[in-house]
Amino acid sequence: MKQDASDAFPSNWGRWGADDELGTLNLITDEVRARAAAEARTGRWVPLAMPTQPASMLGGPFAPPAPASPPVQQALLYTGTPPMGMAELLILNPHHPGLTHLDALAHMPVGGLVYPGRPLTEAVTPGGVVHGSTTAFADGVVTRGILLDLAPGSRLPSAHPITAADLDAAEARSGVHVEPGDALVVRSGWTFSWDGGTPAPGMTVDAVTWMRRHDVSLYAGDISDTFPPMDPQVPMPLHMIGLTQLGMPLIDGVQVEELAAVCAELGRYAFLLTVAPPRLRGATGVPVNPLAIF
Amino acid sequence: MKQDASDAFPSNWGRWGADDELGTLNLITDEVRARAAAEARTGRWVPLAMPTQPASMLGGPFAPPAPASPPVQQALLYTGTPPMGMAELLILNPHHPGLTHLDALAHMPVGGLVYPGRPLTEAVTPGGVVHGSTTAFADGVVTRGILLDLAPGSRLPSAHPITAADLDAAEARSGVHVEPGDALVVRSGWTFSWDGGTPAPGMTVDAVTWMRRHDVSLYAGDISDTFPPMDPQVPMPLHMIGLTQLGMPLIDGVQVEELAAVCAELGRYAFLLTVAPPRLRGATGVPVNPLAIF
Amino acid sequence: MKQDASDAFPSNWGRWGADDELGTLNLITDEVRARAAAEARTGRWVPLAMPTQPASMLGGPFAPPAPASPPVQQALLYTGTPPMGMAELLILNPHHPGLTHLDALAHMPVGGLVYPGRPLTEAVTPGGVVHGSTTAFADGVVTRGILLDLAPGSRLPSAHPITAADLDAAEARSGVHVEPGDALVVRSGWTFSWDGGTPAPGMTVDAVTWMRRHDVSLYAGDISDTFPPMDPQVPMPLHMIGLTQLGMPLIDGVQVEELAAVCAELGRYAFLLTVAPPRLRGATGVPVNPLAIF
Amino acid sequence: MKQDASDAFPSNWGRWGADDELGTLNLITDEVRARAAAEARTGRWVPLAMPTQPASMLGGPFAPPAPASPPVQQALLYTGTPPMGMAELLILNPHHPGLTHLDALAHMPVGGLVYPGRPLTEAVTPGGVVHGSTTAFADGVVTRGILLDLAPGSRLPSAHPITAADLDAAEARSGVHVEPGDALVVRSGWTFSWDGGTPAPGMTVDAVTWMRRHDVSLYAGDISDTFPPMDPQVPMPLHMIGLTQLGMPLIDGVQVEELAAVCAELGRYAFLLTVAPPRLRGATGVPVNPLAIF
Repeated sequence: MKQDASDAFPSNWGRWGADDELGTLNLITDEVRARAAAEARTGRWVPLAMPTQPASMLGGPFAPPAPASPPVQQALLYTGTPPMGMAELLILNPHHPGLTHLDALAHMPVGGLVYPGRPLTEAVTPGGVVHGSTTAFADGVVTRGILLDLAPGSRLPSAHPITAADLDAAEARSGVHVEPGDALVVRSGWTFSWDGGTPAPGMTVDAVTWMRRHDVSLYAGDISDTFPPMDPQVPMPLHMIGLTQLGMPLIDGVQVEELAAVCAELGRYAFLLTVAPPRLRGATGVPVNPLAIF
Repeated sequence: MKQDASDAFPSNWGRWGADDELGTLNLITDEVRARAAAEARTGRWVPLAMPTQPASMLGGPFAPPAPASPPVQQALLYTGTPPMGMAELLILNPHHPGLTHLDALAHMPVGGLVYPGRPLTEAVTPGGVVHGSTTAFADGVVTRGILLDLAPGSRLPSAHPITAADLDAAEARSGVHVEPGDALVVRSGWTFSWDGGTPAPGMTVDAVTWMRRHDVSLYAGDISDTFPPMDPQVPMPLHMIGLTQLGMPLIDGVQVEELAAVCAELGRYAFLLTVAPPRLRGATGVPVNPLAIF
Repeated sequence: MKQDASDAFPSNWGRWGADDELGTLNLITDEVRARAAAEARTGRWVPLAMPTQPASMLGGPFAPPAPASPPVQQALLYTGTPPMGMAELLILNPHHPGLTHLDALAHMPVGGLVYPGRPLTEAVTPGGVVHGSTTAFADGVVTRGILLDLAPGSRLPSAHPITAADLDAAEARSGVHVEPGDALVVRSGWTFSWDGGTPAPGMTVDAVTWMRRHDVSLYAGDISDTFPPMDPQVPMPLHMIGLTQLGMPLIDGVQVEELAAVCAELGRYAFLLTVAPPRLRGATGVPVNPLAIF
Repeated sequence: MKQDASDAFPSNWGRWGADDELGTLNLITDEVRARAAAEARTGRWVPLAMPTQPASMLGGPFAPPAPASPPVQQALLYTGTPPMGMAELLILNPHHPGLTHLDALAHMPVGGLVYPGRPLTEAVTPGGVVHGSTTAFADGVVTRGILLDLAPGSRLPSAHPITAADLDAAEARSGVHVEPGDALVVRSGWTFSWDGGTPAPGMTVDAVTWMRRHDVSLYAGDISDTFPPMDPQVPMPLHMIGLTQLGMPLIDGVQVEELAAVCAELGRYAFLLTVAPPRLRGATGVPVNPLAIF
């Protein structure tokens, strides 16, 4: 992304001050929360994280086969003979495409800067992330979520560039208006992945501009930016503009097939959305299982 | 715990079949969930996990001082010069007292058996946990939570043995009846810890029997079992009977001061409780940030 | 291995006292060392470890493909922009067949006991290995090594049970006598592995008894015990008798093709052998690159 | 270090070609090796690594106290009940001052370049180190070592700037001439550390120039560069000039008290030096236990 062109892109830099770390979570007001709570009626819920099976670190002939480059590894611990209790170490790679996770605002520097215009070198020191980390999301997020199903009962074409028109059409189908502070849950019918030979659809600058216009507070989708990039000028619109310019936290790799089925069954595309990762400070990403509660 | 005496203790072994992995989560029916959803009115919420700062793994003169035996460690990753994105590895010790976490049912073998009476050697193999793991909780939990504040505005005496009478008194103060399927959030005024010289209060068999009588679905508290144990016969009543005999998942190390303040302010001790750890299968424990939503 | 039959097997339990941790390294006297030093004449040397490429822990689209279940993983660390220095974390699985390593004496309990007859529960506590660990080898080992090439220019048949007769024949071919305190380097022509469909050759009780008779101080080979085992009575003779009964440290997974070629070229099958793993205390295994110096 | 001033500093860039990765190890010829082998007479040896006790990763009330920021961590693994074998994971921070280690040539970029003038971005990619890694040292090093004891029976003053004159004096005391291809083992009487309040002595540009003049092949010392730096122009002469300009591998943190005592006892300051880290490719540092063999 050419830095001198960035003025043309939507941005929230400065909107909530030079020290802000909450980004678009600032949009979740008491009114938004009350609107969210009103959606919780029966307590039926759908988890949006994909299940992840940790790979055993045992190795050797008695260990189960482990996949290459797993997102999570597990080392079961010796606690005596007989064991006092069963315990383990877990080694996580939070930004791995096989693990549903929240991106913190400092995850993606653009031109050496992170939201809201702070030099990367100030935000992230060798010893830790001091600005724009998961600390800002450690309390969790409670807001209204809206499912935008871009391809009901089907899936978008490969490498489809998702535009504002796609989002408008899905919003119209949902029967709900996306209002400031709402979280967007997007279904394309694809599985989040970086290594497939078939390029997934991805968000365009036009789509991210739509999100800014609607003041979306948080994005969760079964697709994100395309890899390889569609647009060499802005190779990763959702990360470079959505995350870094708007300060809009992203949840990569949600699984929304069950949610889409439940929304269709109930005829309801809005729900109470909770996002409560482990309360870890100072990370650039953290695994999370968002819940859609009806 | 003498195995031949265990018939005298409450147990749910067999109640939901010999292969059950959900334990007391079976008690959370549609009716319970609807009762829970009815508590979400304003969307105001309180996170129940304690904040955890990962320790830097950088080492050397440029790294910040790190604590001994940290629950979570972080290794910020090199992604090029300049960096393509900021990322890290996280190494977690889920059962560490400095990390709010959910205990899976296979965590605590008693006499070589785990819930509901399965040999440990069948449930936990060197290559992984195949019965009683976090898989059972990977969808998350949505139910009604009740705060039982055992020492409003104060804290229990050191090493106080918590009995059914203590729980009855707190329930009466709360103005709510604990009904089958509800989750219990317990406040003693102590900070969860294993290394303090001053022994914390802890649950007795009598208290755990109370939980069975009320068919509590999940326990979360700022105290748990005492260490060192109070009763050599049953050194860890909550873990050995609550977790293993009842199949009642435990959340160790919740932080409830803010919750107690909000409950007192609102005059409401019931809330929608969500428990949504990372959706990891096959672990014996997993960090979690439960949310109390009003 | 039936415990009551073990009296029939060779053993060094008690030979150097009840607290001994050096095992057959006790056999390396000043005289043995002088014999070893005399073999170092030209300074030409051959490394005996197999090369191991750590697997990148980066993950994602920019990371190189990583193998499943790697013996060593590497996380390159962020040290600033620009980086102050390049550094990493290394995560090792010392007993992995893809990593040449030294087995400490407490690695293999037999009937609940480790060398020299100590209960496993005393030797290995949940917090660490307090008897029979790598501490005993932390100074390194300097002795004379002898290559026994069991199949010069070829390889042994699959699943061949190696006996004393095989070792005698190789010793005769080498032109050197194996004397007390010497280390044995064994070539079968196979690559150390546990996952091959084709079973490798392996040591029999007869061969291990030969090692005891010759008072071998250390074993390093391109084969070890067979997997699956050949003899259900003693499934792992080298580990169960050699390591545990004799207290003879084992180096698993050496690579000896180059050594065999050099020995043949020089017509010399004896050399100065150095074994100098990282000086780590308290482990059950540690990676090592033994050097054969001529 | 001002890049435009670097022409004034000694350098081996280009001496062995633009693709060289061996650096001063190129100086170890057959003649040097024969000179080294001639020093091995009795087989008596001294290990030069400091002992390192891995910190337990167990955590909780049953784990031993662990130090902050340990160089090596150990997770003992569950291998069944009863255990099939004792094993562990080891997590290493190779450049930690508490772990004797070898620095690979790409460890220290100066002005964006590593030995022999290659851009860091080419040498170290996010996925791994492709030039100047430990691969070059994976075979091990066998050469003659010379102990230069800078303060026999005592220690240098704090923050003493070590010059060529210091090295000359120690060489004269040793009775040996440092010849091309020899390794230097330096004793100052200090313990390698980065966190002490009392600054250790450290090498000056003058001393490193001496090493270039004598064509030293490898440096191992109980001191290195000072921290904080003595000379703001060249804050780390041994790393920035020795490692990066000369391509001279460094072993940080050797322990030489026992060596100094043995040298004094024998009246011999030259020995066969073996350096055989685990045969890991692609790392920037690796733990090692060098052996001095007499």
